Amino acid sequence: MCFVALAKPLFSLYNEAVSLNRAMFFRMALVCMINKEEIPMAKKYVYRFEEGNANMRELLGGKGANLAEMSRMGFPVPPGFTVTTEACTKYYEDGKTIAPEIEEQIFASLAKSEEIIGKKFGSEDDPYLVSVRSGARASMPGMMDTILNLGLTDVSVKGLAKKTNNPHFAYDAYRRFIAMFSDVVMEIPKSEFEAVLDEFKEKRGVKFDRDLTAEDLQEVVVRFKEIYKNHMGVEFPQDPKVQLMEAVKAVFRSWDNPRAIYYRRMNDIPGDWGTAVNVQSMVFGNMGETSGTGVAFTRNPSTGEKKLYGEYLLNAQGEDVVAGIRTPSPISHLQDQMPEVYQQFVDTANKLEAHYRDMQDMEYTIQEGKLFMLQTRNGKRTAQAALKIAVDLVDEGVLSEEEAVLKVEPKQLDSLLHPAFDADALKKAPVIAKGLPASPGAGAGAIYFTADKAAAHGKNKEKVILVRKETTPEDIEGMDFSQAILTAFGGMTSHAAVVARGMGRAAVVGCGDLKFNADETAVTINGKEYHEGDLISVDGSTGNVYDGLVATVDASISGDFARFMSWADAARKLHVRTNADTPRDTINAVKFGAEGIGLCRTEHMFFEASRIEAVREMILSDTKEQREKALAKILPMQQGDFEAMYKALEGRPMTVRYLDPPLHEFVPHLDMTEEIEQLAKNLGQSVEEVKQKINALHESNPMMGHRGCRLAVTFPEIAEMQTRAVLQAAINVKKECGYDIVPEIMIPLVGSKKELAFVKKIVDDTAKKVFEEQGTTLEYKVGTMIEIPRAAVTADEIAEEAEFFSFGTNDLTQMTFGFSRDDAGKFLGSYYDNKIFESDPFTRLDQDGVGKLVKMAATLGRQTRPDIKLGICGEHGGDPSSIMFCHKVGLNYVSCSPFRVPIARLAAAHAAILEKQEKNA
Amino acid sequence: MCFVALAKPLFSLYNEAVSLNRAMFFRMALVCMINKEEIPMAKKYVYRFEEGNANMRELLGGKGANLAEMSRMGFPVPPGFTVTTEACTKYYEDGKTIAPEIEEQIFASLAKSEEIIGKKFGSEDDPYLVSVRSGARASMPGMMDTILNLGLTDVSVKGLAKKTNNPHFAYDAYRRFIAMFSDVVMEIPKSEFEAVLDEFKEKRGVKFDRDLTAEDLQEVVVRFKEIYKNHMGVEFPQDPKVQLMEAVKAVFRSWDNPRAIYYRRMNDIPGDWGTAVNVQSMVFGNMGETSGTGVAFTRNPSTGEKKLYGEYLLNAQGEDVVAGIRTPSPISHLQDQMPEVYQQFVDTANKLEAHYRDMQDMEYTIQEGKLFMLQTRNGKRTAQAALKIAVDLVDEGVLSEEEAVLKVEPKQLDSLLHPAFDADALKKAPVIAKGLPASPGAGAGAIYFTADKAAAHGKNKEKVILVRKETTPEDIEGMDFSQAILTAFGGMTSHAAVVARGMGRAAVVGCGDLKFNADETAVTINGKEYHEGDLISVDGSTGNVYDGLVATVDASISGDFARFMSWADAARKLHVRTNADTPRDTINAVKFGAEGIGLCRTEHMFFEASRIEAVREMILSDTKEQREKALAKILPMQQGDFEAMYKALEGRPMTVRYLDPPLHEFVPHLDMTEEIEQLAKNLGQSVEEVKQKINALHESNPMMGHRGCRLAVTFPEIAEMQTRAVLQAAINVKKECGYDIVPEIMIPLVGSKKELAFVKKIVDDTAKKVFEEQGTTLEYKVGTMIEIPRAAVTADEIAEEAEFFSFGTNDLTQMTFGFSRDDAGKFLGSYYDNKIFESDPFTRLDQDGVGKLVKMAATLGRQTRPDIKLGICGEHGGDPSSIMFCHKVGLNYVSCSPFRVPIARLAAAHAAILEKQEKNA
Repeated sequence: MCFVALAKPLFSLYNEAVSLNRAMFFRMALVCMINKEEIPMAKKYVYRFEEGNANMRELLGGKGANLAEMSRMGFPVPPGFTVTTEACTKYYEDGKTIAPEIEEQIFASLAKSEEIIGKKFGSEDDPYLVSVRSGARASMPGMMDTILNLGLTDVSVKGLAKKTNNPHFAYDAYRRFIAMFSDVVMEIPKSEFEAVLDEFKEKRGVKFDRDLTAEDLQEVVVRFKEIYKNHMGVEFPQDPKVQLMEAVKAVFRSWDNPRAIYYRRMNDIPGDWGTAVNVQSMVFGNMGETSGTGVAFTRNPSTGEKKLYGEYLLNAQGEDVVAGIRTPSPISHLQDQMPEVYQQFVDTANKLEAHYRDMQDMEYTIQEGKLFMLQTRNGKRTAQAALKIAVDLVDEGVLSEEEAVLKVEPKQLDSLLHPAFDADALKKAPVIAKGLPASPGAGAGAIYFTADKAAAHGKNKEKVILVRKETTPEDIEGMDFSQAILTAFGGMTSHAAVVARGMGRAAVVGCGDLKFNADETAVTINGKEYHEGDLISVDGSTGNVYDGLVATVDASISGDFARFMSWADAARKLHVRTNADTPRDTINAVKFGAEGIGLCRTEHMFFEASRIEAVREMILSDTKEQREKALAKILPMQQGDFEAMYKALEGRPMTVRYLDPPLHEFVPHLDMTEEIEQLAKNLGQSVEEVKQKINALHESNPMMGHRGCRLAVTFPEIAEMQTRAVLQAAINVKKECGYDIVPEIMIPLVGSKKELAFVKKIVDDTAKKVFEEQGTTLEYKVGTMIEIPRAAVTADEIAEEAEFFSFGTNDLTQMTFGFSRDDAGKFLGSYYDNKIFESDPFTRLDQDGVGKLVKMAATLGRQTRPDIKLGICGEHGGDPSSIMFCHKVGLNYVSCSPFRVPIARLAAAHAAILEKQEKNA
Repeated sequence: MCFVALAKPLFSLYNEAVSLNRAMFFRMALVCMINKEEIPMAKKYVYRFEEGNANMRELLGGKGANLAEMSRMGFPVPPGFTVTTEACTKYYEDGKTIAPEIEEQIFASLAKSEEIIGKKFGSEDDPYLVSVRSGARASMPGMMDTILNLGLTDVSVKGLAKKTNNPHFAYDAYRRFIAMFSDVVMEIPKSEFEAVLDEFKEKRGVKFDRDLTAEDLQEVVVRFKEIYKNHMGVEFPQDPKVQLMEAVKAVFRSWDNPRAIYYRRMNDIPGDWGTAVNVQSMVFGNMGETSGTGVAFTRNPSTGEKKLYGEYLLNAQGEDVVAGIRTPSPISHLQDQMPEVYQQFVDTANKLEAHYRDMQDMEYTIQEGKLFMLQTRNGKRTAQAALKIAVDLVDEGVLSEEEAVLKVEPKQLDSLLHPAFDADALKKAPVIAKGLPASPGAGAGAIYFTADKAAAHGKNKEKVILVRKETTPEDIEGMDFSQAILTAFGGMTSHAAVVARGMGRAAVVGCGDLKFNADETAVTINGKEYHEGDLISVDGSTGNVYDGLVATVDASISGDFARFMSWADAARKLHVRTNADTPRDTINAVKFGAEGIGLCRTEHMFFEASRIEAVREMILSDTKEQREKALAKILPMQQGDFEAMYKALEGRPMTVRYLDPPLHEFVPHLDMTEEIEQLAKNLGQSVEEVKQKINALHESNPMMGHRGCRLAVTFPEIAEMQTRAVLQAAINVKKECGYDIVPEIMIPLVGSKKELAFVKKIVDDTAKKVFEEQGTTLEYKVGTMIEIPRAAVTADEIAEEAEFFSFGTNDLTQMTFGFSRDDAGKFLGSYYDNKIFESDPFTRLDQDGVGKLVKMAATLGRQTRPDIKLGICGEHGGDPSSIMFCHKVGLNYVSCSPFRVPIARLAAAHAAILEKQEKNA
């Protein structure tokens, strides 16, 4: 029983998830990339629903465009209008004020609505009421969502009571409005209103809000208005037009609240898009047993099954559902209760799906037996459902294969690629609780009861499960860092469920077995107390919760997934490689469709316990001879690594990057006394000597220090050893397995042509020796990372030596921005808060700056060597929006971590298909 | 008496200094910059002197071109030929071998020489002998210089003895040649030859080499050849052509020895220029009392006085002078000894100076009463002499003012700008020794006896004096890091003297009062022992040496200097500002001609003991309020600083850079217990708390951390305080003194437009407040440093906010290369050794990489804002070759340290004049 949810009616739950039509988003992104979009100064800031259509999403937002489209198609949509996204942009340009011409247009459109409905704003006889809802191009959690019943005042509430002959309904509506307006528009704490309600219920000895009398509610209204006045210093606004303008401003403001900014950053949504505002005539689902409200999907958003899926509540406004008091009924029940309305709804749903050629997510209200459509949009779905729907729509002849490929968001695949519980382990695991299987997937980890703690521990690479009574939009970051979400309350359409599905995060909701202790420092699950840090496992596919950590198995690609990916592969032009340093990762990546290794980081091979001693010996050598002796120990190990990698690749190409990190990363810290003593013993040196040498390796700015090819310049024998290891391994595996191996040797951190030429000569000279010794030769290529700004601007010269470039966008981003990843945390928060940065440049490639250097280097490189092979191996290689950019610039391949390979394949396909559509448009 | 000097004949001493015609160098650099020079594949690798001329310096080197010119002009030049610089380049391209076609051309030209002279290489009757000398475009110390008497073999030595009827002369020449060839070409230690000579002299009971008999010398020759065979495993080459080709290769090799590379780096000489080789018929100054050898300048290279200046020795080859046995006579004595020769020489000198329109530095040999010219070039001179000569040549009507401006190398002015001894202090100072005043200037510091130690201590910012018996080319780096050089031996034309003059370093040479102890760990000066680290002062203008540190006074610009600089100022287009943070520096810089301040680093104002406490309080504040309280303490101090600066500037402009360094630079280190305790007390916090906060300021890569405008984004109140300080100071000084001040506020480390816009808004908002408070307004400008690569590539966007750009090329170089100045020391040595880098990118602007970004940013910036003001304030702003680049790119000003201002003015003038000459050419 909780007032908390008042401001979050049922409908809003869906808005937490992205309803964005990805294809449209990508198309827009593409257009922006090709030619910076000029937004013309529009004179018209307000569109009535009948003036718009589905193609006007940019101007009207998703919600507004679809309300217009439904109006246009003749569906029963309560009349209203949309204040455009341009009005929002102008609001910010004008120093957060609404220009008079916009206000005028709003009031003119309002008058038109009043005329159509035949009611008057603030009327003491038959007042006109509206809902005010935000609606960006992409729906965004964290933004202000909905205010219902706007227009109620001390005067008009009487009119409503009179007109409906239902004072209880009227005052219930008024108290809800005051609380919602106070909370959402004025940021007055909800708890104060809740406390008043609790006080009244106690006084009356009743359990539910609805059991209070009309008179009680009248008193509640008085008290609510007092709270408002205490906080604001003025009376609750009694002019509906003032209420309306304040609500519109609140929507605009909410575009820039921290949660919305965080969400935009996570989802690559530009901050200058702005949000639209929809002002729609109220219809009431709470006018008795022939009224109701609900949501529905044309197909099952969890499984993709082709069957109408949804819930509704009779005699209710949205927030009643979330309050957890009444259980919604499945939509199929409506057939019995209101067969005509049901049939009308089914027809509408079918028509909408056919019209939009995609699964629809709809909101509706029934007022006294009459159906009203309040929203439709392409429905958010799980990755599994997305695949099934895409494949089904092709089989149904609705979509072409390429169109279907665009229906699945690349990032969504992530949830299909991560481990599921091992079936055998699962059988033995003790089920301690069961909830609703809200978002499929397996999560195992330590439990935390607040989103902040979950986020903090998750950031520290701990696997965490967020356990909450229910989640709210404030929890979004904590959810993002969790393996799974477990809630005590809420249904399949609750906030936790919808957001988790959107994120591809496992979730079990409405788990009634979960009892929070009074102080919320522990939960009791069937008699056993669990504290923060205790381990559980959560199966989002079955709803089961297990004690402890249950073993997991790797994902695989088959069935619909495989069929879908074959379409994606057919469409894409970019090759997809993987970043892998072990045979295990390699095999995994190949299973996920990797076409080779784009980045094999040899230093990762140095860290193994059995090798690190020889590596340290090499580093702490005094002379070239000592160093060569230590390197001779490392050579067979490294060669063995490469042989195993070449075997795992079965003939696919591999780019081997030579030793990159600063040497001090390999030696023990000065306070690791035991290790240093051991090392001194091994080296036959004194502890003091070893410490001095370790100390001498210290650097002021290791990121800009003695690393990368600089190591090969000062210690050529390291590059010699690595060349031997690569070439001998390739020769051996070629001999043994017959693969036609062409080793690709990549020199890191090159900043000038001469630098690369110097190291390349070491490689070539060593190769000559190896070939003589082995009595055979082998084709091989020498290339470089482009990760230093100077390399990018002198790429024409560097290409004289380099046979391929691989853009190391991690380092390139650091150097181009001039801040290191390790240190940027101290200020990036302020940068997001102040809208200086909209996305993390280490996640999403900064196309204006870093991207400009990439483009320049690609052009200069091809100028010198037209057939130069170009790839990317920074973490951006697995980021869909960055892959779009790589396609555009004409790179040959992207390389990413094994789990990102299918995502990259799909993103590459999106890029190619959208480009084609763009050309044909 | 020292054999050490054998390989360094008198002539070579001069070659240690740069004879480079700077104007020509700059012109070539300009050509290269405009359009990368294509060097055509020349077929002709060998030019006879009669085929060349002075304009062929690039191909023939300076020495070769001038020998050709003198031949052409009919002066008595022993016949010979030049192997071109292109042959040197080809030698490296061909993997350090001389192509057969080059060898053929050499031998063909050799045959021609034999024909002209009428002698035969290796002849047993009348052998042809040659000297082999290097000759790059710019003469370079460290390169192999000269081999004399080449062509002597066991057979031809007899021919020489027969022909000259002087076996002593013949065998003396042969033993010198063997030792020189072994040392210079084959790198056999000189000491072994020296020991043999010592043994013979002891045996014979004589003191000087010349006192050995012809028979002794024959035995010496046998022993020398044994040494050669021991080292080389083969006999000393008895084929003169083999000797010649080995000598040519040795010259080519010496182009790339470490000292030559170091010199090139110091002097911006490209590594791909290569050196030419001159093969010239021998003439002998040691054929009796009518023979001799010497050097001379047409004017005094130390003072500029218009008077023939030089020395000679009769019956000598060059090395005899250096050996310190005989004192050369002043050239005027030649008038008495050989009046005809003297007159011929005077005529020649006058003609050469008139021809080259510059002071000439000449080498000559008199063989049996006949004068031969061996070299002429524009003479190296002190800065004082350079100014006087330039001004005199204008007054003599030889040069135009602009031509005269080109005659002084900008870097040379340095020596005129540094302090001289305070006249009063000097009177009281105890003179402990007196030597030759070889290079003017005052140096005071700690003495060191090896160049390595001097360099090591000098690098640590210690003021050092290099004290040596005599200096050698190996000492060049140590000399460079010394305040002054003091030697026990050598004359006004000794190595120490010539090189010190070239460097503008004070030097006193031939200081006989200086006695090195046997183990060279101390020197005794008139009875007192001095050890390394002891303090002395050296006056290069008087030759006096003082005990302890003598006080110095600042330099000033007057007389010839002022007149000369007025010509430079008239010619230049670039404005010259200074980097200054104190009124004292400002006044100094204005005295040196600074037209304003291009960079006022406000953080330097924070470090003062009286302020650092408030600064630390600000940094360790927990809340904005605490921080503002601390900032309120700093505000009046900072405002006071700016007021003093504005007053010192007397209306000149000042660019104020806002706080830049990471905050941890201001707090005490964790081990500074006392300071932390004090700080904790001040802050009312526990020591532990303070330590924790200090620890939290730690950064992995401070250079890429929380600094620059990032501080203003996270702590806007710092930028607010600084804005207040600047504007209030400007308003006050304007009111008080009437200067029309337009403050220039510079935001550092900007990487994106929005970042600058954010900070600019803070400035603008604060300005508005200040103006309201003060009831007045002031024009001011807000601009940014361009020091982050991203700022350079997005300069078009940034210019929408920035009213000026100042290129911070220190940071820009770091970020563009991806290495930090603090860490690069670990590998830059290897980069120089391996010829990957030819110059220090932190000293000389890397035009290909960093420069490309500067050019791009300048173009983009002007595209957006055509009147944007562009400057440079990195250390490159005081580097002549970088200033040339700034002129070319069209910057408005350079800003450099006060002492560099005159240098920058002159370099800017050179750039403008050379560009004009280029256009008119």
